[in-house]
Amino acid sequence: MLKTPLARRLPVWIEELGQIGRTEADGLWRTPYTPADTQAQDAVAGWMQQAGLEVRRDAVGNLFGRLPGTTRPDEVILTGSHLDTVRNGGKYDGGLGILAGIVMLAEVLETSGRPARSLEVVALVGEEGSRFPLAFIGSKAITGELSPEELEIRDAEGISIAGAMRGVGLDPSRIQEARRSDLRGFLEFHIEQGRILQDQGYPLGIVHTITGIRQACVLVDGRPDHAGTTPMTSRRDAMLGAAEMVLRIAEQITALGHPAVATTGRLQARPGGVNVVAEQVEFTVDFRHPDPAVLERMAAMIRGTCEEVAQRRRLASTLHVFLEHPPVPMSPEVQAALQASAEELGLKALSMASGAGHDAMVLAGRIPVGMLFVPSREGRSHCPDEFTPEGEIVPGLAVLARTLHRLATV
Amino acid sequence: MLKTPLARRLPVWIEELGQIGRTEADGLWRTPYTPADTQAQDAVAGWMQQAGLEVRRDAVGNLFGRLPGTTRPDEVILTGSHLDTVRNGGKYDGGLGILAGIVMLAEVLETSGRPARSLEVVALVGEEGSRFPLAFIGSKAITGELSPEELEIRDAEGISIAGAMRGVGLDPSRIQEARRSDLRGFLEFHIEQGRILQDQGYPLGIVHTITGIRQACVLVDGRPDHAGTTPMTSRRDAMLGAAEMVLRIAEQITALGHPAVATTGRLQARPGGVNVVAEQVEFTVDFRHPDPAVLERMAAMIRGTCEEVAQRRRLASTLHVFLEHPPVPMSPEVQAALQASAEELGLKALSMASGAGHDAMVLAGRIPVGMLFVPSREGRSHCPDEFTPEGEIVPGLAVLARTLHRLATV
Repeated sequence: MLKTPLARRLPVWIEELGQIGRTEADGLWRTPYTPADTQAQDAVAGWMQQAGLEVRRDAVGNLFGRLPGTTRPDEVILTGSHLDTVRNGGKYDGGLGILAGIVMLAEVLETSGRPARSLEVVALVGEEGSRFPLAFIGSKAITGELSPEELEIRDAEGISIAGAMRGVGLDPSRIQEARRSDLRGFLEFHIEQGRILQDQGYPLGIVHTITGIRQACVLVDGRPDHAGTTPMTSRRDAMLGAAEMVLRIAEQITALGHPAVATTGRLQARPGGVNVVAEQVEFTVDFRHPDPAVLERMAAMIRGTCEEVAQRRRLASTLHVFLEHPPVPMSPEVQAALQASAEELGLKALSMASGAGHDAMVLAGRIPVGMLFVPSREGRSHCPDEFTPEGEIVPGLAVLARTLHRLATV
Repeated sequence: MLKTPLARRLPVWIEELGQIGRTEADGLWRTPYTPADTQAQDAVAGWMQQAGLEVRRDAVGNLFGRLPGTTRPDEVILTGSHLDTVRNGGKYDGGLGILAGIVMLAEVLETSGRPARSLEVVALVGEEGSRFPLAFIGSKAITGELSPEELEIRDAEGISIAGAMRGVGLDPSRIQEARRSDLRGFLEFHIEQGRILQDQGYPLGIVHTITGIRQACVLVDGRPDHAGTTPMTSRRDAMLGAAEMVLRIAEQITALGHPAVATTGRLQARPGGVNVVAEQVEFTVDFRHPDPAVLERMAAMIRGTCEEVAQRRRLASTLHVFLEHPPVPMSPEVQAALQASAEELGLKALSMASGAGHDAMVLAGRIPVGMLFVPSREGRSHCPDEFTPEGEIVPGLAVLARTLHRLATV
């Protein structure tokens, strides 16, 4: 199914990269500026060289492989994804987009020769924020948004990003050099991380929007009472208030229909005694929608529900939004190019929102950006089960190569 | 209001005892075999001596003050309560019953002389289980139920009960000597720790039953999914299952009416990420009823609710009962004696269940036992707010003295 000898290496590379940063629990945890990261960069650099690309590392540690253009070499079409993983992550999230870019640049070279514009593939640094509490390190350096203050953000062991950079031979005072003004497009190849393509029977997804994301923390205050001596009707039980809020929010957001989502993944009760009525419960709500107006309506709905439940149950509640990413539309031109390539190859592609954040979100503010999804088996992602069989990667590779060539020959 | 000079010391003693084991957060944490415990025992022993009582410490560390009987000194009527507190506890839970016993034994002596039977007041060791995960240490030693294996139970720092006993000069191999066969009755004076007396306007409560208590842990298993990429209708969200179970259990138990209670004080979600659908949620249910048949029905109801919700939401659930105390009826004779004393004094007393466990529960298996409650201001207990004003203690003291005299002159 994979045509060129180099492309046939792809499944092997996925397995090899998937061993670097492997933890005892069978998952991956590969984070920026660690020995596993260096080992992965060395492996990827080697594969870039095998593909005939010029290899270069920038000031923040992003790794590039370049196929110089013939007539307009200073205009660059970029592909690739991130090299890091979440804790207990899988082999496909991020890694697949880098390896696909390498083999498809080689395929463009072999089948069509060098195009007018330059093509580059990138292994981006630190998209996940799973070591330092800062996501999109590499892509923010490329847009020039990574600030010196952010380099002081520390990991769980107290090591700053700047300190970690120095540890792998990078000079944090030079990050502005990572900024690029020659990029004319970015196309990220990625697993869907959901089960929409599988459930609806599409081999490919073309992203129209990266969803808007807000994360809020809700604090519910009641009264700590003795679990044995306080009648049910005399209580101000923060746990019951929180449980009702969580349930009602999920019901309301479900009623809005796809692609609205809301999730409570964390909930803590204080004092937390088996025989004490909860005085205070804190829980999170992650909610997402690609339409800014709907996202705003969801925020009001969630706030209103918490207030209504708290008042009726004689509790107090406060809601604090601690993360806010507006929806990011993908470039209509890149979407059209992807769609045209898919049609030429006789492949059906679903126009869809991405429910997850991506580096493409950061770069979309500056240059035309697109994303191409291949299915995730059972929708599993951010876990060792993450899997896309070779047969479901191949159609995406073909569309990727054709679209890169299309964008680079304009 | 307090008549004898000694009785007038009671409020001062409450304050003095309430300083021993005081923590920075204004609460008390006084646990067995610690320097605070020794200091409290010394203070209580001094007050027992001031009251004219013979002071003695038994093999497990219970402290007794004795007023010997005239004609039947080998038959003992015991009063008192526990000297230890929960973490961040208050001044009244336990301590009040000891101090009330001391002043009322002195009052009996002063107003009526020594009765036929002996009267003793006890400061019991370790009722709360707040240092070692074992409650009722002192009362179990008195009934002979404290086993050598239990003495190997360790605190958070790895110190066993036996080791801690040695540290304060007690010999754990001699605990059988704490066993008593001369007790003919036990009357525990205690704060209600709830707000039933206050709400219903009764100065006193006479306990008919110490409620049955079960504590269960419910484990709900779902599937960890990406919070952004998994549609609401495709999820198997353990958090939503747990929230519905917690709410439904509370609704059903509330519908059963007073005194049925059920409480979820602790809930934990795994993996606990803001942007991950909960794979597993674990929560506790503490449920209580004084009628064994109703308690059994509540257990079936809770189990059935968890199973029904889990099945409907495509989750798995298991329920494990880890603590089970059957309801303990109080002695009809002691209840009648308390009721007669209250009536003679023109005081209304409410016949009620105790929603909390007490040493009286342990002793009730062997001898006639009763409990007398005075109101807790706002029902506050197990917290520094715990308070009963002197004016609401006095009626209870009068009934206590009269009933002790009554039981000791039979």
